[in-house]
Amino acid sequence: MDYQAYFQSKKDAHLKELGELLTIPSISALSEHKADVLKAAEWVADSLRRAGMENVEVHPTAGHPVVTAEHLHAPGKPTVLVYGHYDVQPVDPLHLWETPPFEPSIRDNKLYARGATDDKGQMFLHVKAVEAILEQEKELPVNIKFCIEGEEEVTSPNLPPFLESHQDQLAADVILISDTALLEPGKPAICIGLRGLCALEVSVHTANTDLHSGTFGGGVPNALHALVSLLATLHDEQGRVAVDGFYKGVHELTPEIREEFAKQQFNEDHLKQTLALEDLYGEEGYSFVERTGARPTLELNGVYGGFQGEGTKTVLPKEAHAKITCRLVGDQDPQDIIDKIEKHLRENLQKGATLQVKATEKARAFTIEPADPMLQKAADAYERVYGTRALFTKDGGSIPIVETLSRVLSAPAVMMGFGLPDENLHAPNEHFNLENFDKGLLTIVEYLKSL
Amino acid sequence: MDYQAYFQSKKDAHLKELGELLTIPSISALSEHKADVLKAAEWVADSLRRAGMENVEVHPTAGHPVVTAEHLHAPGKPTVLVYGHYDVQPVDPLHLWETPPFEPSIRDNKLYARGATDDKGQMFLHVKAVEAILEQEKELPVNIKFCIEGEEEVTSPNLPPFLESHQDQLAADVILISDTALLEPGKPAICIGLRGLCALEVSVHTANTDLHSGTFGGGVPNALHALVSLLATLHDEQGRVAVDGFYKGVHELTPEIREEFAKQQFNEDHLKQTLALEDLYGEEGYSFVERTGARPTLELNGVYGGFQGEGTKTVLPKEAHAKITCRLVGDQDPQDIIDKIEKHLRENLQKGATLQVKATEKARAFTIEPADPMLQKAADAYERVYGTRALFTKDGGSIPIVETLSRVLSAPAVMMGFGLPDENLHAPNEHFNLENFDKGLLTIVEYLKSL
Repeated sequence: MDYQAYFQSKKDAHLKELGELLTIPSISALSEHKADVLKAAEWVADSLRRAGMENVEVHPTAGHPVVTAEHLHAPGKPTVLVYGHYDVQPVDPLHLWETPPFEPSIRDNKLYARGATDDKGQMFLHVKAVEAILEQEKELPVNIKFCIEGEEEVTSPNLPPFLESHQDQLAADVILISDTALLEPGKPAICIGLRGLCALEVSVHTANTDLHSGTFGGGVPNALHALVSLLATLHDEQGRVAVDGFYKGVHELTPEIREEFAKQQFNEDHLKQTLALEDLYGEEGYSFVERTGARPTLELNGVYGGFQGEGTKTVLPKEAHAKITCRLVGDQDPQDIIDKIEKHLRENLQKGATLQVKATEKARAFTIEPADPMLQKAADAYERVYGTRALFTKDGGSIPIVETLSRVLSAPAVMMGFGLPDENLHAPNEHFNLENFDKGLLTIVEYLKSL
Repeated sequence: MDYQAYFQSKKDAHLKELGELLTIPSISALSEHKADVLKAAEWVADSLRRAGMENVEVHPTAGHPVVTAEHLHAPGKPTVLVYGHYDVQPVDPLHLWETPPFEPSIRDNKLYARGATDDKGQMFLHVKAVEAILEQEKELPVNIKFCIEGEEEVTSPNLPPFLESHQDQLAADVILISDTALLEPGKPAICIGLRGLCALEVSVHTANTDLHSGTFGGGVPNALHALVSLLATLHDEQGRVAVDGFYKGVHELTPEIREEFAKQQFNEDHLKQTLALEDLYGEEGYSFVERTGARPTLELNGVYGGFQGEGTKTVLPKEAHAKITCRLVGDQDPQDIIDKIEKHLRENLQKGATLQVKATEKARAFTIEPADPMLQKAADAYERVYGTRALFTKDGGSIPIVETLSRVLSAPAVMMGFGLPDENLHAPNEHFNLENFDKGLLTIVEYLKSL
């Protein structure tokens, strides 16, 4: 049976199996879901065993476990390490989900669930591709290893030491990752660059208790005023980050790079329409693709303080909080950026307020060479399945572990993504278009057989 | 038995009785507490009946009920209308309460509970003062009416029409209100001015869904950035409200008024110490007492948007919200101020964001003449109990209904407060110092007998 017919005959069973994994709320950021994250790890391990992988192990870490497996019966052939993650983002605001995030539901050939595309669904493709080849041909064309973690959505704090201590066990000729997206339906892409990340939690305190806005209003500091006026200093009117030295290490775009970005023919009007944007916004002088692919950012992910309930509460809040992340490019150093932001915040803090800054995550940006043969063969595989060669793109997101994986294991990382840009990853109504579920399985099989 | 001995003998019973009322979570702002607010109204009515008041009624309104009662057996004597409220503020942040807000607890001669001082505790003093005189002397020295409402903390939307339609029933020579504070322990004060209030809810929207900060960050608007930069424009660097025309109708302080304020000998250092303030904050050129007593404000009571949970969520929120209240003085018109703020916000909104503004509450500022004999007799009553004459002060808070009561019923309003400025009204750990519970009862008896 050819692989297309094989996958068609298995489709219902595959979706049912993936559905089991998607019902597990493995939210790595929330400690109350620790048991769920472990349950998802065990599920992945079982699924690898059922696929025919050997030496499947669930390794405890200081945080959530790492699942590894191997199948090393192709002497002289390259070794492929598949990396993925079974943890997912939080789901709030819950009321905006059309169907519950952990009750998978198929509508309009799209599978809706938290983790459907990021990354349970995409990771699952590799398990089923390996299973398919073993069932059809009784052997694999390459040596295969899996390393599936449960902390990607909290920036993989425990994977780097795990990689260091398991360097031999995980050694490979290429690292294969499906956690990115096509450019648009039918237009495959391989991401050859990822932005880095740093995260800060900022708190402002002004008093030891919340105060009545009548008795004290106008005479004492208000933590929200202090925070809001402080956060407003972080950008200038041209949309640039106004932190001194922030752009150090950022390479200006050359005409050649701008040309490469232009090849994507990205439709900004379509984006505005899809997301109901009044307008795009960002650094002056750059297109959307340039802003998200090659420019760093400083974004407020959450701001909160004072009364949020129904009605009015005439209170002066004693504290206010912000969660900030930066996307980094080029040679920006995460710790250096954190230090500069903290310095900026301290210098601009209003009288009467105290400031706490906590740095929570750090990762450098990542790039690989377009000429790498492992990458070129991936583009070939896409071409055979999609009928069009994959473009090489730079993605605005961060998969901090990619840079670490590639560096520690001294192997190129091929980011063979099968998502789509509008699949609401990290937002309500995350989904995975099943056309790319089908083609993803075939593309992975093609790639493994081509190595 | 003299009144001091009488109240001493009844103290445990009084506190137990007040404790019953304090266990009812009559939060008028939250619709889920509607039944509790009604329960508190019924409790107040029963308590008035037990005290010997007549024609006790619980009047339904479009919101929460009004409780009225009367005792009109002193022909030729003045009629006193006691106003108070049995509703309370919300209690969040709940985790900062040392004991639960609706489980009254006495520590260090202070009664802790939501509503202990604002206003259940203070309102209760009048019920017990009347009961005491009736028990001791079988008759009252004046005619007394009560009007106790359940919507003061949501700015009394239904009391004004109720007053209009019950003008005859509520007609009085003086309106007596205990919902303010002494200057400090042992230093009584009668508030002769209150600030007005207007409230706005502001929302900013930028997209139809939350977005991934990697894929979209730096290229689309972020609702939090739009809101924060907008809110930061509301004040200038001198702490003044930067809304065009905001200060229209605000009377500049004359040297005479400044002298009156100075008489309070307010200890700013002590305030800083008590509230652990790094520094005071406000309009340049004014003292704390002037800022809160005679200057208008614009305060952020709540700001929220995006992720507030544990850890990091790399999201660009599609919406962000702020709750704003202004305290008004002089001839500032609440609707005019709301219009000016909305205009300011629309003019300063960043590209790519849409704005919604909802005005929720409106009240004008209030003042009365220091020479009013009803006020002077109140100062005398304080002097006999506290050994020191009450100062006439202006309070920064708003009891919007005071201006309406005085205007509709054509009677002076005497604000005979027994709270203290640090009793955490509207904040966690609200309490009522029992020294003023005892002295409050005696002062009210003295006052009624002096009229």
